[in-house]
Amino acid sequence: MNQNYKILDKVDYPSDLKKLSIEDMNILSEEIRDVLIDKLSKTGGHVGPNLGIVEATIAMHYVFNSPKDKIVFDVSHQCYTHKILTGRKYGFTDPEKYNSISGFTSKYESNHDIFSVGHTSTSVSLACGLVKARDLKGEKHNVIAVIGDGSLSGGEALEGLNNAAELNSNLIIIFNDNDMSIAENQGGIYKNLKMLRETDGKSECNIFKSFGLDYTFVKDGNDIESMINVLEKVKDTDRPVVVHICTQKGKGLEFAEVEKEKWHFNSPFDRKTGKPLNISNEENYASITEKYILEKMKNDSSVIAITPATPMTSGFTKKVRSFENQFTDTGIAEEHAVAYASGLASAGAKPVLGIHSSFIQRAYDQISQDLALNRNPAVILVFGGGISGADKTHLGIFDIALLGSIPEIVHMAPATVEEYISMCDWAIEQDKYPVVIRVPSKVIHMEDSEFVFTGINKSKVIKEGNKVCIVAVGSTIELGEKISEELDRRYNMSTTIVNPVYINGIDNELMNCIKENHELVVTLEEGVLEGGYGEKVAAYFSKDNIKVLNFGAKRRFTDRVPAEKLYQEYHMTPELTANDIAEILNLK
Amino acid sequence: MNQNYKILDKVDYPSDLKKLSIEDMNILSEEIRDVLIDKLSKTGGHVGPNLGIVEATIAMHYVFNSPKDKIVFDVSHQCYTHKILTGRKYGFTDPEKYNSISGFTSKYESNHDIFSVGHTSTSVSLACGLVKARDLKGEKHNVIAVIGDGSLSGGEALEGLNNAAELNSNLIIIFNDNDMSIAENQGGIYKNLKMLRETDGKSECNIFKSFGLDYTFVKDGNDIESMINVLEKVKDTDRPVVVHICTQKGKGLEFAEVEKEKWHFNSPFDRKTGKPLNISNEENYASITEKYILEKMKNDSSVIAITPATPMTSGFTKKVRSFENQFTDTGIAEEHAVAYASGLASAGAKPVLGIHSSFIQRAYDQISQDLALNRNPAVILVFGGGISGADKTHLGIFDIALLGSIPEIVHMAPATVEEYISMCDWAIEQDKYPVVIRVPSKVIHMEDSEFVFTGINKSKVIKEGNKVCIVAVGSTIELGEKISEELDRRYNMSTTIVNPVYINGIDNELMNCIKENHELVVTLEEGVLEGGYGEKVAAYFSKDNIKVLNFGAKRRFTDRVPAEKLYQEYHMTPELTANDIAEILNLK
Repeated sequence: MNQNYKILDKVDYPSDLKKLSIEDMNILSEEIRDVLIDKLSKTGGHVGPNLGIVEATIAMHYVFNSPKDKIVFDVSHQCYTHKILTGRKYGFTDPEKYNSISGFTSKYESNHDIFSVGHTSTSVSLACGLVKARDLKGEKHNVIAVIGDGSLSGGEALEGLNNAAELNSNLIIIFNDNDMSIAENQGGIYKNLKMLRETDGKSECNIFKSFGLDYTFVKDGNDIESMINVLEKVKDTDRPVVVHICTQKGKGLEFAEVEKEKWHFNSPFDRKTGKPLNISNEENYASITEKYILEKMKNDSSVIAITPATPMTSGFTKKVRSFENQFTDTGIAEEHAVAYASGLASAGAKPVLGIHSSFIQRAYDQISQDLALNRNPAVILVFGGGISGADKTHLGIFDIALLGSIPEIVHMAPATVEEYISMCDWAIEQDKYPVVIRVPSKVIHMEDSEFVFTGINKSKVIKEGNKVCIVAVGSTIELGEKISEELDRRYNMSTTIVNPVYINGIDNELMNCIKENHELVVTLEEGVLEGGYGEKVAAYFSKDNIKVLNFGAKRRFTDRVPAEKLYQEYHMTPELTANDIAEILNLK
Repeated sequence: MNQNYKILDKVDYPSDLKKLSIEDMNILSEEIRDVLIDKLSKTGGHVGPNLGIVEATIAMHYVFNSPKDKIVFDVSHQCYTHKILTGRKYGFTDPEKYNSISGFTSKYESNHDIFSVGHTSTSVSLACGLVKARDLKGEKHNVIAVIGDGSLSGGEALEGLNNAAELNSNLIIIFNDNDMSIAENQGGIYKNLKMLRETDGKSECNIFKSFGLDYTFVKDGNDIESMINVLEKVKDTDRPVVVHICTQKGKGLEFAEVEKEKWHFNSPFDRKTGKPLNISNEENYASITEKYILEKMKNDSSVIAITPATPMTSGFTKKVRSFENQFTDTGIAEEHAVAYASGLASAGAKPVLGIHSSFIQRAYDQISQDLALNRNPAVILVFGGGISGADKTHLGIFDIALLGSIPEIVHMAPATVEEYISMCDWAIEQDKYPVVIRVPSKVIHMEDSEFVFTGINKSKVIKEGNKVCIVAVGSTIELGEKISEELDRRYNMSTTIVNPVYINGIDNELMNCIKENHELVVTLEEGVLEGGYGEKVAAYFSKDNIKVLNFGAKRRFTDRVPAEKLYQEYHMTPELTANDIAEILNLK
């Protein structure tokens, strides 16, 4: 630990907290905030949400009796203080142990974490299950859901609130209102929340009451004493109740209090100046997309950029947002975002929805029914797809497979920047197909790699050879070329390399040619093998005397495992892949 | 046409309607209702919702100017009058043309149907897209979303309402409140709707206002004149507005007015008595499940049956619902239902969620994140999976593939009633895995076919043979046996038959044995080939000298194509499958 803390040094578990005076808890909150800022400045993480909820978390653990009383954190962007107070202080004070603790609640880490959570808007529904199970089993304890105002716009949260009202039993919903989503909040309910804040919760028009729930208002959710008083009152309630607390996002870190969006999640920064420690001017697909879409919007007022609350993921910066009429942030509302895009496309506008791979799965039904069934030419850009060291809740390996079963979607995976941009252009300008483009995981420039439409499912031969054909999806083109070089070096082989371009269908004509002078087809993809592109290729050749080797990710939730380690395990390195190829072909 | 109608005979398009007096429109509404009851008594269909909205639809087409003004029907259970008034009267009056018209809106059928729709809660979001596109292109017309009270509980609808408030432009949301979902409405918002009905819309606590929307109330939505007056007022509004209309579900058909759930959707019935024309006492999986779950609930008070608004699909009859504490209807809220089940299971209760194949896709993210990531032992029963002549919006062919990419799920497909029941028992009693059971599409009884747990992914050999191994998923076991007989008869072959039991993983040990004395593996499944079970088998054998033939559905939206025709097309008949097998093996 860097320094000594008067109170925090004595606090490891909620039981330690319960001995403290209000005054000591106020000191504790400052100490925790200091620890958080120190740790976050070194590692990065969810700065704003965690700094805002320090006092409320102390009050919760003072009043309630975790883990007997069960606290469910929505999205768990705000669980650091909870972790510090439930036996995991070392993960925040000891730099050598920073990595031992997840940035999200994890049931596999502590029995104070009831669920592993990283997607938003789930807490109320999960808590409803806990409530009902408790009642069925005749147990007595409090169930607390902690949900932020940003998460409220998500359909699952609203479905949960509607059902919560039916429980007639103990459920305490702590609604943490810091007047911000990741970016600004979007939507009509935020006008109501503003009205509630301005009337100290007294407005008759009250979204929570209209959902049939009891309601209590706390003006200053950063005041421990107020929080304790209110929580003591609702403790052991026999009805579902919403406790609406107003807190300050980023509290205690000057820059974060002002620039709330920028400080929602941060990379390591200088604690004094707030400046990022590692400034990178490297080109990435957010900046590439920003530049492209700005140009597109300028030239065509029917182009409209859409984000479900994560504009920066797609490069929808303030510059993009300055085209007010041509930009929609739906708030956290992936289902609406896809249906909205479908509606736009059906009426002749040109919607471009940017979304993270891990969140596209929140709109499966909308992609199928609202979009694909209606064949509306909306464009969806899927960012973050690939094998990475991400948290288990934010993996980018499922999108190819999950979209692969939906009819009518044209699903594409560009390999280079040039191919990506020209593909976006084609997708936006055509009016026949719903198009999903998997944004590459690596920035690769290649001359003459532009996409030219020659028909659906038409793949591209990068290099003609024989015996072995490597079909490399998207950014794996680099690996494909290296494998080819390795085989050439080792065995003096000239392999074929194919960029499939389309990843939910097979280029029958090309693959029939491949059959003629190849013994083995190798597929490479940065996604789960089950249901992925490779399996389609395997099924295609399953009637022929040609073998297929699929390389890709295992179907599992890896948690912050470095990408390099995963590539090794999946044999996705030039050496290991070449070994497997040599083995199957009996090469020596 | 059966008879002559004074007004209806003169009405084919909205333009004909606009010439009528209120008095004539009242007559027209009775005539349309007569046509609907006559047609529905012969063909079956959505009785309740369509009978309730006759007058409101007439008023809409009188006031607005379709298709310039765009009317979007939510779920489109209520679009029959709209179809009659927009050039498709023959589909309701001429028995020979009944089948030419879909029971849902279809953009491929008429330019008055803006979207093809069959899943709930999508209209507001789709309409928001139309609004925004209209404004971007500088066009002028009204956009109208028609949504029922039952659909309001779905997350997508609530996300849509929240976003609608941001539009600051013409959008008219006609909220058709008949105080019923498919079954009773569930949730806190319905208390608010009741309050609004009781105060003639004057209650200050108003869910629509809390979403930031303007609001108008119509006490009698079955009164054409009131409807016209209100719609004239909101026509060309420059703000989003909700028109809350109270209508009577099933209006004009005595039985349907009383037993609203039973008459939501009906098979053909006797118009005088309301009795079904074809009473079937055949066993089906709803009745089988009802019997099973009743017994289970009696003996174990921690077993809880859950339905997202479609209790009858799963056999959750009034008898099941009489176990009030052990039954939850979440309303239309598939996302909540899955998360709620996960919460229940995590706390030691035994949730059994029954859901239709076509609706499981509305909860992909929840199955992945709320359930699988947390490895909570909830049980999901997927009904309606299979190849059928269903509407394109309600196909049961996607569930295997879409669930196939999710880690940690134990996904099973029983073949017989006995296997299903014993599998349910195992799934409910174990506490390690989230389990999804694909309920068979056919009722097949077989002695000694009970499921016994011997390890995950352990398949069952039904018949030992050689050369050809048929792996038959779920109900295709019957087809598998017939193919085997056909091959025996034709070529004197003894084929192996395997029931895989688990459908998102391969029994490596068994399949390795299969390699030894088989040349061909044939897979049969009632689902899309892309991402399905067969592709997993093909990928498994892709490195070996063994061929694989996958039989299953094409990835496409078929619309009311008879199952028999589809089975022919997919070569899933004993003769056609055997032909393909003979061809690949060069048998003569």
